[in-house]
Amino acid sequence: MKYLFFNDYSEGAHPKILELMASTNLTQENGYGEDSVSIKASQLIKDVIKKRDADIHFVSGGTQANLIVLSSLLKPYESVISASTGHINVHEAGAIEATGHRINAVDTNDGKLTINDIKQVVESHTDEHMVKPRVVFISNSTEVGTIYSKGELESISQYCHQNSLYLYLDGARIGSGITSKDSDLTLKDIAKLVDIFYIGGTKNGALLGEAIVIPNRELQLNFRYHLKQHGALLAKGRALGVQFLALFTDRLFFELAKHANSMAEKLTNGIKELGYSFQTDSTTNQIFPILPNSVIEKLKTDYGFYVWSKIDDSSSSIRLVTSWATKEEMVDGFIDDLKLVSEK
Amino acid sequence: MKYLFFNDYSEGAHPKILELMASTNLTQENGYGEDSVSIKASQLIKDVIKKRDADIHFVSGGTQANLIVLSSLLKPYESVISASTGHINVHEAGAIEATGHRINAVDTNDGKLTINDIKQVVESHTDEHMVKPRVVFISNSTEVGTIYSKGELESISQYCHQNSLYLYLDGARIGSGITSKDSDLTLKDIAKLVDIFYIGGTKNGALLGEAIVIPNRELQLNFRYHLKQHGALLAKGRALGVQFLALFTDRLFFELAKHANSMAEKLTNGIKELGYSFQTDSTTNQIFPILPNSVIEKLKTDYGFYVWSKIDDSSSSIRLVTSWATKEEMVDGFIDDLKLVSEK
Amino acid sequence: MKYLFFNDYSEGAHPKILELMASTNLTQENGYGEDSVSIKASQLIKDVIKKRDADIHFVSGGTQANLIVLSSLLKPYESVISASTGHINVHEAGAIEATGHRINAVDTNDGKLTINDIKQVVESHTDEHMVKPRVVFISNSTEVGTIYSKGELESISQYCHQNSLYLYLDGARIGSGITSKDSDLTLKDIAKLVDIFYIGGTKNGALLGEAIVIPNRELQLNFRYHLKQHGALLAKGRALGVQFLALFTDRLFFELAKHANSMAEKLTNGIKELGYSFQTDSTTNQIFPILPNSVIEKLKTDYGFYVWSKIDDSSSSIRLVTSWATKEEMVDGFIDDLKLVSEK
Amino acid sequence: MKYLFFNDYSEGAHPKILELMASTNLTQENGYGEDSVSIKASQLIKDVIKKRDADIHFVSGGTQANLIVLSSLLKPYESVISASTGHINVHEAGAIEATGHRINAVDTNDGKLTINDIKQVVESHTDEHMVKPRVVFISNSTEVGTIYSKGELESISQYCHQNSLYLYLDGARIGSGITSKDSDLTLKDIAKLVDIFYIGGTKNGALLGEAIVIPNRELQLNFRYHLKQHGALLAKGRALGVQFLALFTDRLFFELAKHANSMAEKLTNGIKELGYSFQTDSTTNQIFPILPNSVIEKLKTDYGFYVWSKIDDSSSSIRLVTSWATKEEMVDGFIDDLKLVSEK
Repeated sequence: MKYLFFNDYSEGAHPKILELMASTNLTQENGYGEDSVSIKASQLIKDVIKKRDADIHFVSGGTQANLIVLSSLLKPYESVISASTGHINVHEAGAIEATGHRINAVDTNDGKLTINDIKQVVESHTDEHMVKPRVVFISNSTEVGTIYSKGELESISQYCHQNSLYLYLDGARIGSGITSKDSDLTLKDIAKLVDIFYIGGTKNGALLGEAIVIPNRELQLNFRYHLKQHGALLAKGRALGVQFLALFTDRLFFELAKHANSMAEKLTNGIKELGYSFQTDSTTNQIFPILPNSVIEKLKTDYGFYVWSKIDDSSSSIRLVTSWATKEEMVDGFIDDLKLVSEK
Repeated sequence: MKYLFFNDYSEGAHPKILELMASTNLTQENGYGEDSVSIKASQLIKDVIKKRDADIHFVSGGTQANLIVLSSLLKPYESVISASTGHINVHEAGAIEATGHRINAVDTNDGKLTINDIKQVVESHTDEHMVKPRVVFISNSTEVGTIYSKGELESISQYCHQNSLYLYLDGARIGSGITSKDSDLTLKDIAKLVDIFYIGGTKNGALLGEAIVIPNRELQLNFRYHLKQHGALLAKGRALGVQFLALFTDRLFFELAKHANSMAEKLTNGIKELGYSFQTDSTTNQIFPILPNSVIEKLKTDYGFYVWSKIDDSSSSIRLVTSWATKEEMVDGFIDDLKLVSEK
Repeated sequence: MKYLFFNDYSEGAHPKILELMASTNLTQENGYGEDSVSIKASQLIKDVIKKRDADIHFVSGGTQANLIVLSSLLKPYESVISASTGHINVHEAGAIEATGHRINAVDTNDGKLTINDIKQVVESHTDEHMVKPRVVFISNSTEVGTIYSKGELESISQYCHQNSLYLYLDGARIGSGITSKDSDLTLKDIAKLVDIFYIGGTKNGALLGEAIVIPNRELQLNFRYHLKQHGALLAKGRALGVQFLALFTDRLFFELAKHANSMAEKLTNGIKELGYSFQTDSTTNQIFPILPNSVIEKLKTDYGFYVWSKIDDSSSSIRLVTSWATKEEMVDGFIDDLKLVSEK
Repeated sequence: MKYLFFNDYSEGAHPKILELMASTNLTQENGYGEDSVSIKASQLIKDVIKKRDADIHFVSGGTQANLIVLSSLLKPYESVISASTGHINVHEAGAIEATGHRINAVDTNDGKLTINDIKQVVESHTDEHMVKPRVVFISNSTEVGTIYSKGELESISQYCHQNSLYLYLDGARIGSGITSKDSDLTLKDIAKLVDIFYIGGTKNGALLGEAIVIPNRELQLNFRYHLKQHGALLAKGRALGVQFLALFTDRLFFELAKHANSMAEKLTNGIKELGYSFQTDSTTNQIFPILPNSVIEKLKTDYGFYVWSKIDDSSSSIRLVTSWATKEEMVDGFIDDLKLVSEK
């Protein structure tokens, strides 16, 4: 194998994180997230989002963040609206339902919800024989690499507030999303427009960890009870805080995401030059080129990636994911090899 | 503050763990616990427990371990028997009930369940108007520092098997428990006598992580679904595996626990020499001396610890916890200071 | 209002049920379903299905039956496959999710699942990041009035058994389903082909009550615990048993269903003669004629019914439901009135 | 067997209920509790409690009422305080935990909670590592036949309001409770002092049915969603409404309860005259005399009752329950027979 493009979590942590872990390791700290490291990390995030009264909580992974946030927002009979490609609807082993709630899944072309999608769900749920939609779940970047524009997010936000819906943004790849060359969104915008979201660390250089951000003050009360009940309060909470302290020092978080995006862009350009098209229009760190099955087979010898979906009898899309750790030479090598196997 | 005896997770990880994290950091690995680091760590644990067909899964904390294990064992109407001091019954924010199950809590003198305790619960639950007890939950060492002998564990194990009960051991402090000078139990014994247990890392030198061990083969099937559903499968599973790879190399795990115990023993001896008694009879890393309230107040200036329970109007027990990181000079200093404030 | 065709539960109980309730009212009986009336009713049902070793339990309604049966069959990470029109997926306020489980909803043309539908769900759920489909939920007659043939049910049953899936049939309208002129299925066939099903009383002349039938012996163990936990064990269980004792005496159950079907058939024929078509092909007690919106408006003055779905800008389908209590003169009157308003 | 004193639900419904069921049986009504019969019954109850803005919902049994009410009141991390003898803590098969919540059970002498009991639970739950008590559950009459005085209920109510706790009263035997000769409480008082309660029909002459009453307006919103989700909305809701329409016409409800109480009083007096004492001091329809085991054995030939608890090696308490249907001659016969077997 030359390189794995399977995902953005094949390598460990960015070296700066390990350094900070080592240098802060032996001080005695309070447990369960009330340590000085986590507190400093929270301050840095609040600085970036310009919301001093937001609450920040660090958890160990995205599924954990999603199940805790959603179960904290919903009454027993309430449900969450999601694109059918949404992580909660596919790849969380029924974690949301396990907390008692239905996902109203909506088919989309590009993994993004529109106001019309949301409206149709809301308007078709009319009485107590049905669940009552209460939260809108979106991802940015989405599970298929696409992003929301500021205008789109503003419209959805407005619709939600007018219709008593909470808006929750899954930011597993928020770094890649907002540093995409096509994005006009900032973390500050997002903190203003959604009720609650999380900033993904794991897929952007952290060893583990996601930062749940709660700008909506009415949702802050007693949130730590939800964390504890789901086993998300680590005794050594510093293990999570230190990730974000490093990531939000000197804008490392944004630099890592930009690097991942630029590697994906390089891949995209190289693949396009070879005449191939793409399943989705992505300027983030996940791309979905469509290749002949014979080419895919040959690439598999040297590269790791997932075959995403069947396009027709002789071709499929594959998913290539880049990360903070992807080296330019690996990208160049991939393009060279793709050229080679395409020519044969 | 001179030193915090609040708990065994005030410091970060043992330096050898950080070293191994750094040296393995940049290889590309499979996600979600199927990395080579976690696989090696599992092998080392299987070597120690002498059970090649056991399953090992790493999770990030003890509450997470407990809620996943118990919800995987119980049908909707089944319950778990625990000492009323059990962690699940006090300090997990209702995590077990949140998965749908009752805890049958039994008052005990020393945090340990006896066969008689278990029997009374089983025999008083007679029909479908009541829950059906199915799992016995024990901790070793217990939440009050006591330990089970091999004979006690054998008896409970036998009773459980004869009465269709699963036996689950919470090993948050299993290191301290089995390396206690009074313990005749080994990890191998435990793996033979219980259906499922976990080996606590967090409270014995790991940055985070507990290793769930499943010797009972019928309980192994599809266990990863339970992990995923509760958000316990970390994308970078190596973060957990590396803790146990370091801890189970050259018996580091046992050395760290012994150190913690010997520091507690030193504290115990020093306190006894000053004429004080103890609330429980502990030879592990948690001790509960009974001190005059005035002495406690003075100690608080320089040391961190919890006041545990009121003994009478003028005295209380306090909890002192030592760890792998507790330095002997801190223990000596504490005894000196206790002597000083006692004499005044 | 001349007559309500809203549903099959607008009237109370068939008079024979009330008579039996009165005549058995004052004997002293055991509580919670262990009374002599319920036991006799169970015997009669076992006689009809020719399964002496089936278990029968009476509950008060269909949503209650569905949530208890499904939660008894599923482990926490398992899911149930249903047509998207299935009652559990639309009209039970998230009752199944509230017990922790996802519904894998499949769009269909006629409310019926095919082997291919089931297969696609099973084959796209490949690992522990997703739920694991375990139960196939079908209704007969379906929520849109269609029925399964014996051949169809045999194929589904075979596929389920070969793929470790339980087959559960919601029989809220099983009476109407199996007495349809197009049905070649009997209760005996169903008891042989499915793992568990229920016989709907409420929609076929009972005041309340559904009979859960469990032919699969491995599913019988401790079922009463599930009933009790969900509040389904009535103290005066006789209230449910007496319904089925009356319904299964002298084949009343089948006579009432046939009457409902024949009234629906009469409606169907009359509406067809007026030149109208139907949304689904139903020979049961729910029919879905397509009418001009102007005609629908006029009918609403004298008749109660639901407008089902928009067909085009000027016409919609409506749902007409007949029951054991529908009088032939009401049907004749409706056809006459429809003719009248159609001509205008 | 001469007579069963097992419980207050051995017979069917009071004849006046059956009559009303028959006379209202064939009108066409709305489903799911929105029928004219249920609406009238609600009005009558509102008249009695003098609360026009209360909400009333009819459900089929007490466990169902308890699980729906409590799960509607509690956030995921919140718990309910109950006497350890409380029905929810013993005889509901874990129904409350199945909705995700812990019961904080308190041992009492007489089945009644005191402010001190409640306070101790509240004050020992201090942070997010523990559940947060939110509801106080009391029963009147209690499971051991005792009753709350108006003063006691006022104090508890005041404490609850001052401490942000909801007060819920399980009224399975509220009829017997408030018509006890020692009671100074009325339904109107209760509706004023508690946030939510239910009026038990099943144990006071109804065939089935309990009326959930919600005086606290903030708890009324969307309550029907909870009912539906737990399968409690009967399609023919009239089946429940008609019970209460009959019971609250001409004060039948109170007359039936008084009769049960007077039969129990007669039993009590007769037993006392024979020199026996009682386990609890009950003036309701459940009494707990203490008898020699030899006497109990002889009584069992002719009478049905439960042996309640062992008092010493030679005697036990038994539970005798009377109802609206208990005839005075049965009571007289029992006393005669007890005298006879006592003398031998």
